[in-house]
Order: sequence, then C-alpha cells, then structure tokens
Amino acid sequence: MVEHSGLDIMCLNKYCHSSSSSSSSEQDKKIFTKLKFNMSGDYPKKNAEILSGQYGTNLLLIGGALIMGIAHHDSSVKEKHLLSFATCLMILQLIWMMWYIMVRDRQKNTRTEKDVHATTCWIRGGLTLLALLSLIMDAFRIGYYVGYQSCVSAVLGVYPVIHAIHTIAQVHFLWFHIKDVIKSFETFERFGVMHAVFTNLLLWCSGVMSEAEHFLNNHKRRLSALGYENLTIEHSEPDCNCTTSTCSMFSSSLYYLYPFNIEYHIFVSALLFVMWKNIGRTIDHLSNQKKLATKTKGLTVGPILGLLALASTIGILVVYITHVEQSFQMRQSAISMFYIYGIVMLVVMCSAGAVGLLIYRANHMPLDTSKNPSRQLDTELLFGSSIGSWFMSWCSIVAVFSTTSNPPYHWTNLIYSLLIVLEKYIQNLFIIESLYRQQENREREDPELLAAPEIFSVTSSLAPPYNGIINQAYDTPDRTCVTMENEQVYGCTRKHSEVPLPVGNKIKEPSNIKRQVLKNIAFLLIMCNISLWILPAFGCRPQYDNGLEQETFGFGIWTAVLNFAIPLNLFYRMHSVASLFEVFRRV
Amino acid sequence: MVEHSGLDIMCLNKYCHSSSSSSSSEQDKKIFTKLKFNMSGDYPKKNAEILSGQYGTNLLLIGGALIMGIAHHDSSVKEKHLLSFATCLMILQLIWMMWYIMVRDRQKNTRTEKDVHATTCWIRGGLTLLALLSLIMDAFRIGYYVGYQSCVSAVLGVYPVIHAIHTIAQVHFLWFHIKDVIKSFETFERFGVMHAVFTNLLLWCSGVMSEAEHFLNNHKRRLSALGYENLTIEHSEPDCNCTTSTCSMFSSSLYYLYPFNIEYHIFVSALLFVMWKNIGRTIDHLSNQKKLATKTKGLTVGPILGLLALASTIGILVVYITHVEQSFQMRQSAISMFYIYGIVMLVVMCSAGAVGLLIYRANHMPLDTSKNPSRQLDTELLFGSSIGSWFMSWCSIVAVFSTTSNPPYHWTNLIYSLLIVLEKYIQNLFIIESLYRQQENREREDPELLAAPEIFSVTSSLAPPYNGIINQAYDTPDRTCVTMENEQVYGCTRKHSEVPLPVGNKIKEPSNIKRQVLKNIAFLLIMCNISLWILPAFGCRPQYDNGLEQETFGFGIWTAVLNFAIPLNLFYRMHSVASLFEVFRRV
Repeated sequence: MVEHSGLDIMCLNKYCHSSSSSSSSEQDKKIFTKLKFNMSGDYPKKNAEILSGQYGTNLLLIGGALIMGIAHHDSSVKEKHLLSFATCLMILQLIWMMWYIMVRDRQKNTRTEKDVHATTCWIRGGLTLLALLSLIMDAFRIGYYVGYQSCVSAVLGVYPVIHAIHTIAQVHFLWFHIKDVIKSFETFERFGVMHAVFTNLLLWCSGVMSEAEHFLNNHKRRLSALGYENLTIEHSEPDCNCTTSTCSMFSSSLYYLYPFNIEYHIFVSALLFVMWKNIGRTIDHLSNQKKLATKTKGLTVGPILGLLALASTIGILVVYITHVEQSFQMRQSAISMFYIYGIVMLVVMCSAGAVGLLIYRANHMPLDTSKNPSRQLDTELLFGSSIGSWFMSWCSIVAVFSTTSNPPYHWTNLIYSLLIVLEKYIQNLFIIESLYRQQENREREDPELLAAPEIFSVTSSLAPPYNGIINQAYDTPDRTCVTMENEQVYGCTRKHSEVPLPVGNKIKEPSNIKRQVLKNIAFLLIMCNISLWILPAFGCRPQYDNGLEQETFGFGIWTAVLNFAIPLNLFYRMHSVASLFEVFRRV
Repeated sequence: MVEHSGLDIMCLNKYCHSSSSSSSSEQDKKIFTKLKFNMSGDYPKKNAEILSGQYGTNLLLIGGALIMGIAHHDSSVKEKHLLSFATCLMILQLIWMMWYIMVRDRQKNTRTEKDVHATTCWIRGGLTLLALLSLIMDAFRIGYYVGYQSCVSAVLGVYPVIHAIHTIAQVHFLWFHIKDVIKSFETFERFGVMHAVFTNLLLWCSGVMSEAEHFLNNHKRRLSALGYENLTIEHSEPDCNCTTSTCSMFSSSLYYLYPFNIEYHIFVSALLFVMWKNIGRTIDHLSNQKKLATKTKGLTVGPILGLLALASTIGILVVYITHVEQSFQMRQSAISMFYIYGIVMLVVMCSAGAVGLLIYRANHMPLDTSKNPSRQLDTELLFGSSIGSWFMSWCSIVAVFSTTSNPPYHWTNLIYSLLIVLEKYIQNLFIIESLYRQQENREREDPELLAAPEIFSVTSSLAPPYNGIINQAYDTPDRTCVTMENEQVYGCTRKHSEVPLPVGNKIKEPSNIKRQVLKNIAFLLIMCNISLWILPAFGCRPQYDNGLEQETFGFGIWTAVLNFAIPLNLFYRMHSVASLFEVFRRV
C-alpha cells in the first residue's frame, strides 16, 4: 500500500529525532545546514519527476514560440534563431550522454539492471536505418550551405554538423544504454534524460514545420498555376547565387528525406521517455522471462493481401501526384480515385481487426497487469495520436453536411472519413488487447523454464555495459539471446508461470489455427499501415486538394488543422506498425 | 506483480478446458455462441477503458469540429447546430443518471464502496455555488430567447431549459454519487460516466468559445474606436427587434456569468473523470482513515497579505478596464501599471512557495505512494494546465527580444513573463509535494485510531445511497463525520500508522511553528491565485492590448494562442485554489 525505501525511513527517523531534541530557534539554524545535504541526497522521487518534467516542457515551449515566430514571416525571428537554439540543446545532450557513458564505464563491474521490455532489436534496427537517412540529409544540408556560404548565416553550416554527431552518438546510446535502469544520481539523470527527450521532440517539431511549409508552398504554387487564388508564396531562398551546381538538387532531395528524419526523432523521444520512466524502478525479474517467435508458418493470406495493398498504394501515389497538378477534371478524378481506394483499404482493415477481436472474445484470457512503462506508453501514444486523424475526419464529416457545392467525391469523402474513425477505433482495441493479453503457455515442460531465471541473474551481472561500437546482441548469440537480448528469437518457446492452464497436446491444434489467423491479420495490418503512411508522407494529401473542408472552415483554419493532424497521423501509422510487429511476434 | 481477479481465472480455466476437448471445426461454431455471453459478461477492463475513452474523445472531437465551423463565419454551420448537439448529449446524460440512481436505489441494502478522496465537501459546496450562477445564466438565456422568439431558432429556447435541468440533476449526482465505486454493469457504467465527462468538457469548450468571441469583438471595437485598424466585427445579433425591454440587459449580463459557468463544467468533468478511474477499483480502507483540520490558529501574515493582494487586484481591475479604452497614453500607463502589479504579486508568490519548499527540505518526510486517482489527476491537471500560460510567457519573451518598437512596458513585460514561468514552476512543486507528503502523526494515543476502521466498515454499509435532496453530510454529523464525509473536520486528529516516528511532546513545538508558516503560505497563495483568476476572467488581458506579441506573431496567430492559453490559465488558477485549499487543510 505505502512503499518506503529503506533510505527514506532512515532519514525520517534521523531528522525527526534531531528536531525533537533542539529548541525552535536552534531548529531554524539547523534547517539551513541540513538543507544542502538534503538537496543533493535523497530528493523525493515525485519532486524530481515534476522538476525535470517541467524543465523539459518549458524547453519545448521555447522552441514552439520560436517556430511560431518563424511562421509569421514579417517578424524578426528567423530560422537561424531556432537552429541555434536546437544546436545548443543538442550540444548539451551530447555532453550529458558522454558523461553518462563515462560513469557507466567506470561502474563496469557493478551490475546494471535492464528493462527488457524497453525496446526490441527490430525497433533499434529500424531506428538505425532512419538515422542513416538522417545522416544523408545532414550531408545534403552541408552541401547546400557550402553552395550559399557567402550569404547565409553560419548557423546553417554548424547545425547539420552537430546534428550528424548527435545522430551517431544517439544511435550508439540507443544500442547500448536505452534499456538501463538508472539507480545512481537519479535526480541529475532525470534531467539528462528529460533533456534528451525534449531535444528530440523539438527537432521533430522543427522538422514537421519545415515539411508543412514546403508542402503548403507547393500546394499554393499548384493552386496559382490552376488560376484558383492569388496566394503569396513565402520563399526562404538565399539572396546570392549558388557557387556549386548541386544546390537545387540538394534542396529538392531534402524533402524526400524529411519524413524519415521526422519519424526518427519522435521514435527516439518515445524510447527515451520509457528510459525516464524506468529511472529508480525496481525491475521484476519474473516478468522478464519471455521469448517471442517470429514464426512464419501458415502465413499466406496476410502477406498476399498486404503486398497487394502496398503495390496498389504505390500505383495510387504515382497517379495521384501526376494527375492532381493537371486540369480540374483530372484533379477531381484523382481525388475520387483516392477515396475509393481508401474505402477498400479501410474496409479490409476494419474486417481484419474485427475478426481479431472476435477471436480474442472467443478465447478468453486474463489481461496481464504487471507494470511495464513501455507498453503503457505504447497504449497512450496510440490513443493520443489517433486524435489528430479523428479530428480531421469529423471536420470532413461536418464539411460534407454543411457544404453547398457537390463534387463527385462528396459521399465517398463521408464514407472514407467515417471508416477512418472506425478503423482507428478497432485497430487500437486490437493492438492494445494483443499487447495486454497474457501469453498462452505451450510446451510447459520446457527445461529452460526453470533454468532461465538463474541464467538471467548470473549473466546480467556479467553483461559488460560498454565495449565499443560492436553489436553485442549478435556478438555471443548463445548467451545474449537469453540475457540482454532475451526478447530476441532463437526458438519459439513461450511460457507463463502465473496461471495454471490445463496442458496437453489437445490444446495445441485449435490454438494454432487461431494463432495463424491472428498472425495473418497482424501482417496484413502492418502492410496496410505502411501503405497509409506512404501516401501522406510523400505528398498525397487530398484533404488539401478537395476544397470541401476549406469552404466550411476557411483556408487558414483548415491549414492549421492539417498542420497539426497530418504529422500526428503519420506518427500514428508508424507507431502502429511497430506495435503490430510486436503483436505479430506475440500471437 | 500480476493480478488476477477470481473471475478471470475461473473463466480462463473454463474456456481452455472446453476448447481443449473439442476439435477445431466444432471450436469455430462454439466461438460464436460463447461470444454473446463474453461480450455482456466479463469484458476485459482494459478494453472497456479504451472503448469508452475512445467514445468520449470522439464526442468531443465532433463538438470541436462544429465549434470550428462556427468560428468561420462564412460557413453554413451555425450556433444552433452546436446547441442541438449539446442538448442531445445532455439528454442522454440525464437518462443515464436517472438509470444509475434507480439502480443504486434498488440496491439500497447492499453496501456501496466509496472513495473518500474523490472530493471534499468544500469542493462540492463551491460547485453548487457555481451551478447556481449557471442557473441564473440559463434564466437570462431563456429571457433573451423569449424576447427574440419570432426570429431565432427554437433550439436557443430548448437548450437553456435542458441545461438548467441538467445542472440541477448533476449537482444532485455530485452530492450523493460522485464517490461511488461502481462494481456492477462496469462496462456500461464506464460509457455512462465517460459520456458525462465529455458532455461537460464539450459544454466547457462551447462556453470558452462564446467567451473568447465576445472578448475579441470587444477588443476589436476598442481598437476601431482608437482608430487603429479596420477590423470587421462579427455580430450574431438576431434580425428582429426584441419584444421585451430586457434583451440587452440579458445579453450583457450573460458575459459576467460566463467565467463561472466555464469553471463549473471543467470542474465537474474532472470529478467525473475520477469516478471513471474508480470504476471496478478495490478501495484500500486503511488509507481512508484520515481527518483534516481547518484550524485557524496562528493565521495572521497570510490572511493580511492575501486580503491586501485581493483588494489591490480589484483596484487594478477597475483602473485597467476604464483606462484601457481611453487615449493611447492612458492605455500604455494602464498596461505598465498591470505589469508592475503583476511583478510584485509574483515575487511574493515565488518567495512564499520557495519558503514552503525549503521547510519541506528541512523536514524530510517520505512521500505517500498509495493509489489515489484523485490526487494523481490533480497533479496531472496542474501540470497540464500550466502549459498554456507557459507558452504565452515564452511567446512574450521571444516577442520582447525580437520587437523593434519600444513601449514603456518593454522590460516589465519580460520580467513579468519570466516570473510567471518561475511562479508556476515553484507553485506546482509546492502543491504536489504537499499533497504527496505523508502526514505527521501527532496524538498517536488517540483512542479513535483503533476504533475508526471498525466504525468505517459498519457505517458505510449502512449509509443510505439516496434519501432525497438533503445534505446528508450535516444530517447526522457525529456519524457521517467519520464515515461518508470522513475528510470533514470536527477535530484535529491526524494519524499515520505506517512509519514509526518518535513521539512525545517535544516534537510538537517546532512542528507547530513550521505548520503555522505553511498554513500562512497556503492561505496567501490561495488569495493570490484568486486575484490572478479575477483579472483575466473579467476582462483584464494585457496580452491583447500591449501590441508587442501581435507585432511578432501577427494578429491571427497570437489571437489563436490566447484563445487556447487564457482558458487553460483560468482553469489553472481555479484548480490551484482548490488544491491549495486541500494543502491548507493538510499541513
């Protein structure tokens, strides 16, 4: 009910004792001498959380204010101010990471607890890939700066260099330290991790803003070309000529790399946030003993449908982007095509999710309520990031009912929007239930079941915290598979020692069919979510082009809604791919 | 580590058993027959939470889309559409509340568990007062409708009537059922409570929008009168003449009542959210045994300074509102005056909060980590609602540094904004630590200590769930003081049975001085927060008038920021008053 660390009780007794033996005037003097010790020593955990949380939030808000200043083109706040601020934050984070790694290095011999749920190899691998693309982006930025060196601020050259160093250091940190459960210098480390979380969030915001501005300028240019409106396009082109021949190539390629950079930063901040939540936690070793299988047996319908969806998506993307810039008729038919494609996709996804939920209902299983900050965060992020897209959909629905114009995609827009709401509703339920369900125990007589806890505690005390940039997970696969990387897969054993289940061969058969159906569903949903990420990420955004919502809400308000909702939706799709992959491995 | 309800394990065994004894084809048939039972029966708690949470969020988003449509004056979405939607939601909530009360009435004899932390008499009393002012507002609205009956939509007449009924029913619900821990029909009740939460949130949003629009129109009128800009003022006046003589009186008085109505709805939704969190919870009776004292001994400095602050605030408000509408010089001096006043207030508040935190550091005490959804929500709301005001402050700071104009309040604005950030930072820390600190145990030999648990369990089983609108808390004070209203105060006993403290008379003396200082601080902060609520609530908003931020961010963006930040800030002030009152009673 009420938890006390031993330290707390000791201190409590000490202070109460000393305060009771001194008079009230001496007391006041003592207060301030004790203060210093108290501040550095056992600062209450709740306070440290609030302190660092408030610090991080304020960092982001400063960045937000700068971004808003940049968005208003008449103001004297320019991009270089934001970039300087971001550079400072990144340098601070680099210093903290160096300090952290050095401290860990010194404590090599003491055992560091790890939260195995914190992340998986797959996620870190994916992030490494995204980081590589970010590095290419930095290279392009440096190239761009070299070309315009004479007339742009030096910050535009410093920023990509620091960003590249930051990216490399952070990926290293992700591979070797993200699972650490910090137990020393807790208050200071909380600030460090929080700083890292919000630095990444700020870089995400800044990426989202650049991307939105670029898209909006493109959109306005397109509208002007069609003779619609006389919109002013804000250019941030430098005043001098490029000294190399590659500037325009650099600046146009940049925008194809933005989506990856954006996803990289938001994912890293989510992982770091889990690390922050883990600070000072006592890890429950029993719940750590899980292995997941990436078995592909029986996978047929899911991959076929999924690849079909992916292929058609790429087709739709190409057709949409080429057609929407042409005549009014072509434009309308491209938008109609998009909605019909969307409706088909969403119906498939809704059905798949509903079948998954029905299987769960038929096969009742208690939910796992053990503490797991990573899973908790996954749930909250799925829910939170759905809001953007739901809001967009409800706006579309209101617009459909209130509009007076009657384009051909009037009703398809309505159905599409309703399905978007329904699909996220069902998919969230499916993912969250999948993540919270306890795993069925097959092969209960597995000899590793008893051996595992022992292996864990021994080897994790030996696990070297830092050995240079070598992929330790694959270094000594036999050992790390069970210990550090013990969510890694070298078998399909799966156990749970909590609930006594009737075991035997009879249970295996029906369970396997259900499991195969669920695996197919998860695979199909992964491919569909990737498809629905690709479309807006690479410029297929009919919400800008269809004109219905703009008529109801006005260009300004509707653009603001889209600038808020589309990045959230992109994050939702990517995040649900990661979660569904976890589901795929669990079922 | 892993919790199971007995029910879960039973079901698990049942299904696994039946599934293991049937072949895979029969299995599929059985799935669907079992489904119905499963859906109605033991739907997993996590799923029910997500289902109802998603439902509520979507309700609010529909409302948000309608509000946005209304904000764009060219669209065909009008206020009557929003009011119809809100009316439907209120009627649904009324039906649910009736159903809930009837079910509870039938279960009169079974014991209903209560969460005594859920709310206090003071908060409910305050809410009743706010509800009364809301009822007056409804009366004015009905009067307004009668005057313009011939040319306005009937919805404008139906809405206030339903709102009045809704308010009365909801206050009744707050007094007698808000502390209930629901244990039957959990999934259905989750939807009901969530519906109530989001209905109130929607009414809050709608109130905020009306208020912001009214203020903005006033502001534009003022600017036009000063010859600044040629801004169009959007009127929503009806097309016909008023048939009674009181229409203009009604419509102008309405805006003085809006702040109260707005606070009423957001507070109720917070209380209902705690009720939602409590559904299906197992209440820990030991942590329920607390009594709080509203002792006023030694209260001198706090009230004196507090009343001084309140009096000067009212003076400032009157001077500001009269001066700001006059000449340019008067306007500038009014704004300067506001900032100087604000700086003095905030320095006092920062110092008070810092002294409180220092006292806590000197008097170390472990934090209470027992589960308490109400306190958890308080913390999150304080933190979350600070964001609005922080963002506004950082925008001001950016504006001060980037502006080229140099009004007299240039630097006072900067200092004021920095102090706002600091003050919220310190105050949040102080409030949260106060709420989480375990209470010192004085009078350990109190005979009630042992008797209390028994009394609690007996009387709470006798507590009548519904006896008509009588204030049961004061009905039988001797009994309810310990049971239903056992956070009520009829003594100053305070105990904590967890940590063994050295007890005796020696401890009392210094502890009392510190306690008196803390009580004074809490009282002072309450008065200061009320002052800082009064100013923006009644129209003293220099952020609109000073012109600095507008220059940097543009009128549109800056107005949008203020429309988001000011309501959040108002909520923050009110909420911190409620929390500080709790602190005042605890220390």
